[in-house]
Amino acid sequence: MTYVKDGERIDDLEINGFRIIQNPLFFCFGQDSVLLSDFATVRKGSRCVDLGTGTGIIPLLMAAKCKGADWTGLELQEEVAEMAARSVQMNKAEDVCHIEVGDIRCIPKEWRGAYDTVTCNPPYVRRDSGLKNISETKLISRYEVTVTLREVVEAAAYILKDKGNLAMIHRPQRLTEIMEECTSHGLEVKRLRLVQPYIDKEPNMVMIEAVKGGGRETRVLPTLIIYNKDGSYTEEVLKIYGKCS
Amino acid sequence: MTYVKDGERIDDLEINGFRIIQNPLFFCFGQDSVLLSDFATVRKGSRCVDLGTGTGIIPLLMAAKCKGADWTGLELQEEVAEMAARSVQMNKAEDVCHIEVGDIRCIPKEWRGAYDTVTCNPPYVRRDSGLKNISETKLISRYEVTVTLREVVEAAAYILKDKGNLAMIHRPQRLTEIMEECTSHGLEVKRLRLVQPYIDKEPNMVMIEAVKGGGRETRVLPTLIIYNKDGSYTEEVLKIYGKCS
Repeated sequence: MTYVKDGERIDDLEINGFRIIQNPLFFCFGQDSVLLSDFATVRKGSRCVDLGTGTGIIPLLMAAKCKGADWTGLELQEEVAEMAARSVQMNKAEDVCHIEVGDIRCIPKEWRGAYDTVTCNPPYVRRDSGLKNISETKLISRYEVTVTLREVVEAAAYILKDKGNLAMIHRPQRLTEIMEECTSHGLEVKRLRLVQPYIDKEPNMVMIEAVKGGGRETRVLPTLIIYNKDGSYTEEVLKIYGKCS
Repeated sequence: MTYVKDGERIDDLEINGFRIIQNPLFFCFGQDSVLLSDFATVRKGSRCVDLGTGTGIIPLLMAAKCKGADWTGLELQEEVAEMAARSVQMNKAEDVCHIEVGDIRCIPKEWRGAYDTVTCNPPYVRRDSGLKNISETKLISRYEVTVTLREVVEAAAYILKDKGNLAMIHRPQRLTEIMEECTSHGLEVKRLRLVQPYIDKEPNMVMIEAVKGGGRETRVLPTLIIYNKDGSYTEEVLKIYGKCS
């Protein structure tokens, strides 16, 4: 059986033989998804949702790495969701990964308070930041065209059980807004990690974990540095990519 | 003329010959004050207030480094303020540094909206965190006995002009609270910098600059690392301490 359509390619995730289908005309997954999968806290037996799952990269990486959790990937764009569903089949992961077509702004009522963990790698760029001339699928993935930061946090707060956690990666420029949205939706930012390309460069990503009804204290992890001065990956990034023990 | 009383000592600040009087029975200034003085943005001709000035370290470092700004150091404890005032005299800095005895919770009405910059190195530890058996002056400097984070931010918001800035150093554990207090008092966190002792250790300080009526975007600076792996100061810290060009 062939899982791949015209114009698509299969990439090896290099974890337990997992592979993923991507279409270069759509948004291909990036380092941010891999880093978020490493950062997120998921307990065995957890019910998890990945909001705006795209290729399904986060549920697939999570299923590959950590057994015993159940993942639903919610994706707005039908053709993208259909491709993600084929990746799930190709990996024989249908028992732990489910792809659903749906809108973050209209979460089904039966999801209310029903999940332990929500992950999200949302579009980073504000709607008003001057849209680029790119395809519609890429636009939706990068710009807040169909969903805003506030709507993502609202959805997570709606979906999560008490003490359930949201893991999200975003741009540091949006940090104040992220913290404010989380706090005002009853999600307390309990863990935070900056990601810097180099030791002397400003961070270009921030990962947060917020807990519904959590206490006040925030644990800030050591800043993750991606590259050594010579441009090679740092030891920690190699570990995250599973290329170093 | 002698500026020093029994039990006090004079330390060299190693910037333009400035020195400071300290009493080991009180709270002696730490690295945090030096880092905050480096981080804070102060424009020429600015009127500035340092809340809870203690030894007067921040006004003195600022006066030593950056000419043309006027500093008022507000200190609750009379005997500490009196010692700080002697440090100002000893440095012949009376024209740019003024020490006043006063309470952050009762700012004089004439200060309202009158200042360009507020700095603060407040007590880090919550009142309810189990008080240690230390002297009262040290207790007041380290624990939120006489002033809380909220009261510091309230005071800054009251004192600052529109577009005036607050520079503060605190513990990363309090980051969510800092961001929330700033936002709810109309101060937008525009710059943020974590401070880590080593590259692979969690940050133990965070510096923020918040602007009254500022826009939403936060600039996050590269994390400041204090020590190299061999325990020596990093180049940037040596620069901040003026020991490296």
